[in-house]
Amino acid sequence: MGEKSVQKKKYILDTARKVFVEKGYKNVTMKDIVEACEISRGGLYLYFDSTEQILLEILQMEAEETDDIFSENITEGDTAADILTLFLKEQKKELLQKNTLTVAVYEYFFANRSTDKNNMLRKQFEAGVRVLEKLIEMGISSGEFYCENPKGAASNIMYVLEGMKINAQTFGISEKKVDEQLLYIMEGLIID
Amino acid sequence: MGEKSVQKKKYILDTARKVFVEKGYKNVTMKDIVEACEISRGGLYLYFDSTEQILLEILQMEAEETDDIFSENITEGDTAADILTLFLKEQKKELLQKNTLTVAVYEYFFANRSTDKNNMLRKQFEAGVRVLEKLIEMGISSGEFYCENPKGAASNIMYVLEGMKINAQTFGISEKKVDEQLLYIMEGLIID
Repeated sequence: MGEKSVQKKKYILDTARKVFVEKGYKNVTMKDIVEACEISRGGLYLYFDSTEQILLEILQMEAEETDDIFSENITEGDTAADILTLFLKEQKKELLQKNTLTVAVYEYFFANRSTDKNNMLRKQFEAGVRVLEKLIEMGISSGEFYCENPKGAASNIMYVLEGMKINAQTFGISEKKVDEQLLYIMEGLIID
Repeated sequence: MGEKSVQKKKYILDTARKVFVEKGYKNVTMKDIVEACEISRGGLYLYFDSTEQILLEILQMEAEETDDIFSENITEGDTAADILTLFLKEQKKELLQKNTLTVAVYEYFFANRSTDKNNMLRKQFEAGVRVLEKLIEMGISSGEFYCENPKGAASNIMYVLEGMKINAQTFGISEKKVDEQLLYIMEGLIID
C-alpha cells in the first residue's frame, strides 16, 4: 500500500472510531461512516467491506498502541512492582477515559459471542493474564511479592479490570473507587 | 390488585423475560411482548406503559427472588465461610446460566447510563459490597478469616463477579475458570 493509501486508511479508521464511540456498534452503518469521513461510498469500499471489519481493525490498532506505550515506558532497572504499577496506571487511564469504544466493543461481541480461541476479547484477556502471571512470578523471585497462586492473582486482576470497565459504562466509577481497588490489589502482593 | 390481575401480571413478566433473553433490550417493542403473550395491546397497556417498565419490574422481581433464596438457605449455626460459600455458589449458578437477562440489562444501562444513586445496577452492586463486607467482618471476629481490608476484599469479589459475568457474554467462561477464581478468593480469606 502506498503512503497516501496508508494515510487515507488511517483517516477512515480515526473518523469511524468517533462514530462508534458515539453510536455503539449495532446502529452504525457504512453510510454513517461515509458521511462522517466525507468521502464517496466507493472510496470507503476500496478499503473496507463492512462496519465489522472497520471496528476490528480499530481494536487491533488500539491494542498495538497500548502494547507499545506499555513497552516504551518500561526502563531498565524497573522492578516488578514498578511494571505492575505502570500496567495498572495505563488500565486506570483507559477505564476513566470518556471517548471509549467499550460500549461498541461489548455490543459487537454480544452479537458475535464466540468461545473460539481467535475471539479478540478472549485473546486479549488471556494475554493479560499471562503477562501478569509472569510479572508476579518475577516479583516473587526478586523478593518483592508474596503470592501463593500467581495465576489466580493474575486472573483476579483481569476480572477486576473487566468488572470496573463494565461498571464505568452502566453506572459510572469514580477515580477514588478505582484507586482504592488497585491499591488493595497491590497491597495484597507487596511484601512490606 | 385482585388475585387474577396479579397472576396475569406475573404471566406477562415471565413471558416478556423470554423475549428479552432472546432479543436483548434495544430491539424489543411492546408489539413483540403483545405477540409473545398472545394478549391484546390494551391488555398489555393495562399493566405496563413501556418495555422499560417491564424490564425494570423483571429485574426487581429477580433481585427479590435471589435475596429470598439466599436468606432461606442460611441456617442457624452457619459460619461466615459457609455463608460466603453459599453466596458464591448462587453467583456461580447465575453466571453459568444459559437463559440470562445479562445482555438485555447491559443494553438497557448502556443506553440509560446514570451515576444516580437510584440506578438499579449501582444499588445492587453497592448492596453486594456491603453484605460481603459485613460477612468478612463476621468471619474475622469468629477467627475464620484473615483480612486487613474487608471493604477492599468485598469490592474485589463484586468486581470479579462483574468481570466474569461480562466475559460469559462476550467469549464464554468455563465452570473450571469460575471455580478456580472463586477458590482463589476463598483461599485469600480463610485461615488454614
